[in-house]
Amino acid sequence: MNIIIQPGEADYKSLVQRPQMPKADMDEVIGEVFRLIAEKGDQGLKELTKKFDKTDISSIKLDRSDLQKAYESLDPILRDAILGAKTNIEKFHTAQLPQQVKVTTMQGVECVQKAVPIERVGIYIPGGTAPLFSTILMLAIPAKIAGCSQVVLCSPPTYNGKIHPAILAAAYICDIDEVMQVGGSQAIAAMALGTETIGKVSKICGPGNQYVTAAKEKAQQFGVAIDMPAGPSEVLVYAGEDCVPKFVAIDLLSQAEHGADSQVVCVAPDVAIAKAILEEVDLLVAELPRKDMAVAALANSFIIVEKDLDKAFAYINAYAPEHLIIASDHAGVLAERVVNAGSVFLGNWCPESVGDYASGTNHTLPTYGWAKSYNGVNVDTFMRKITFQTVTREGLVNLAGLVVPMAKAEQLQAHANAVKIRLEHIK
Amino acid sequence: MNIIIQPGEADYKSLVQRPQMPKADMDEVIGEVFRLIAEKGDQGLKELTKKFDKTDISSIKLDRSDLQKAYESLDPILRDAILGAKTNIEKFHTAQLPQQVKVTTMQGVECVQKAVPIERVGIYIPGGTAPLFSTILMLAIPAKIAGCSQVVLCSPPTYNGKIHPAILAAAYICDIDEVMQVGGSQAIAAMALGTETIGKVSKICGPGNQYVTAAKEKAQQFGVAIDMPAGPSEVLVYAGEDCVPKFVAIDLLSQAEHGADSQVVCVAPDVAIAKAILEEVDLLVAELPRKDMAVAALANSFIIVEKDLDKAFAYINAYAPEHLIIASDHAGVLAERVVNAGSVFLGNWCPESVGDYASGTNHTLPTYGWAKSYNGVNVDTFMRKITFQTVTREGLVNLAGLVVPMAKAEQLQAHANAVKIRLEHIK
Repeated sequence: MNIIIQPGEADYKSLVQRPQMPKADMDEVIGEVFRLIAEKGDQGLKELTKKFDKTDISSIKLDRSDLQKAYESLDPILRDAILGAKTNIEKFHTAQLPQQVKVTTMQGVECVQKAVPIERVGIYIPGGTAPLFSTILMLAIPAKIAGCSQVVLCSPPTYNGKIHPAILAAAYICDIDEVMQVGGSQAIAAMALGTETIGKVSKICGPGNQYVTAAKEKAQQFGVAIDMPAGPSEVLVYAGEDCVPKFVAIDLLSQAEHGADSQVVCVAPDVAIAKAILEEVDLLVAELPRKDMAVAALANSFIIVEKDLDKAFAYINAYAPEHLIIASDHAGVLAERVVNAGSVFLGNWCPESVGDYASGTNHTLPTYGWAKSYNGVNVDTFMRKITFQTVTREGLVNLAGLVVPMAKAEQLQAHANAVKIRLEHIK
Repeated sequence: MNIIIQPGEADYKSLVQRPQMPKADMDEVIGEVFRLIAEKGDQGLKELTKKFDKTDISSIKLDRSDLQKAYESLDPILRDAILGAKTNIEKFHTAQLPQQVKVTTMQGVECVQKAVPIERVGIYIPGGTAPLFSTILMLAIPAKIAGCSQVVLCSPPTYNGKIHPAILAAAYICDIDEVMQVGGSQAIAAMALGTETIGKVSKICGPGNQYVTAAKEKAQQFGVAIDMPAGPSEVLVYAGEDCVPKFVAIDLLSQAEHGADSQVVCVAPDVAIAKAILEEVDLLVAELPRKDMAVAALANSFIIVEKDLDKAFAYINAYAPEHLIIASDHAGVLAERVVNAGSVFLGNWCPESVGDYASGTNHTLPTYGWAKSYNGVNVDTFMRKITFQTVTREGLVNLAGLVVPMAKAEQLQAHANAVKIRLEHIK
């Protein structure tokens, strides 16, 4: 990690730049997968699972009893941890449920905004040796709170030819309606298009490799919404004068261990603190099982030294980090300065990992600077807000003087007539 | 308009099908526009305006005085109508501002969700002879209420080499920060990439032709969010037994006059009502200046006869209309059945045109069945919800038993260590 001392505003442009994402042109291969699923449905899914995941699956959908078995054989300490995390995530996300909005804009004109759940949503969870069961909680809990009537989960059978039992147990705990043992772009295509077994969904959420990401992009062409664009995970730590360098160091490392493409940035008020943090990083990295990944990620990372708070937070907001840790006992005050971030961790006792798992906030967040445009997953992600307007005779009379001249100026005569014909009827 | 009597559920699939949208492959031409704007900036914008809009523009940005002049020469009746509509739209959208959510999930663990405005947003308004000034109100008013610090509007100089004065006047009324006289895919590229004059925006909203739509899709690759996918406008009218056939007919026509690709569907409880509506349609269409467009749109349209309310609304929700009119004095009760729609118009005195202009609801809505996945523009469109968590020493002790086992099971040791190292420090 390099130390960069008091960069000027002109330097921000390069300092907020993320490493280029490899953007392979996958249009052809993804197009082929969608065509095959559209044409062959379930059979196509089985063929592609054999081809890509080297696994023969006789059935696509798992039974509820398969999930229950995985749940019952789960390590009780892990089970209780998941249940505890679920309670916290439920508390915070339930409080996010939007209220109905009702306004009388004119006498006789009432406007209502009502949130309704998306009926059928899909969740994707990648395979691999480390099972990302925590992401099931982060997606399924808000979907259930929103009131989605069907939540379907797809995950590849890549753990000894099956879905990892921790994923199945988490699906059981979150009361997922349907679990399908298919993964990759073919699973996304199936949820977007529908097959005999997997009904078409209206929205797809969840992480994945570049094939899954490309398939989610493609799914949008079929009117299926997605959670947000995907990019490598990242953290920015603001290390205040009263930070504990060792804590900052392990927080930087807990991001770095995600993978070589992870991004880790620190902003500190003086060089001494920056150096103290780097010393701790060197000590702590050695102990990590995923040391090689962390070292690779740190190679692209840096510490900015900036004493001026206005400048420090101007940079932080320009970077728009997915995770922002404010390591200071004054974090609450500093938080007022945050305009662009996904999720913010306040104080010296608040590592990112609490939000990754259990504090109650969501961990599916915008990366790559997209926090300027997007927010993380929340209850809204699984709802739509429909508007209703009720207009009485009196209301229509009141609106006529507004609607008719505007419709005429836009040269939409029937729009004006729809009001006029009704007014004539009243007379 | 054909009459279709009591279709079965198996028929819904074809009856909710929209006409195929022409999907020209514009990747190459749009890619070229983005490359030119990235390379040449303002100069590229001027070149493309000359090429596509046949107009030489000396400056890209208009002065506030240009807008004021247009405002002052606006027909006073239209001006007052716009101001009245603005008041209603402001009332309803101000009431949508989200409240902060604050929850203590465990002792010492506080989670907050705070909505913040997207800082810089772009609005696109197409050119043509009929100026779509009402869309400026529908996009700029919620953006201003959300608190966006910079709202930039792009519209092509295609009205005698300028932007239509009604658009400029509406921009003045809505206090748009910057108005740029450029349009088409080049305007979208400029807002997505930034030029010397047009700063990069974080989100782009507004309608446009297929080039604009393709450019908005492309903009997403640069992390720029968009309002929603675009499709032709549509209405579905549920004509209850107590409807006024003439009112239903003019409402169908006010959608049909939008263009030949507009979609118009009616659901009525019996054949007599359906026939009465069709008779009125035939009488009223003759009087419309845009008669040819309306007739073309009606050729693809149909009336479904279905007495059973459950079946009628099952179909309506499967269709997921952009605009849904419930033409009945019992509309309030029937509205409870609506799950998929953009905006709903209740009662016999509530034509779609009130919501298009002035009732207070937004008219930028999901078409093409996408109401299942998306909602229309509202104040949320211009905000992001950031989460904050504050954890005390006690809170961290409470969370440790949840976070550590979960991090270990996901094989993320540094995530566990970030908690453990802090706990050791407490001891």
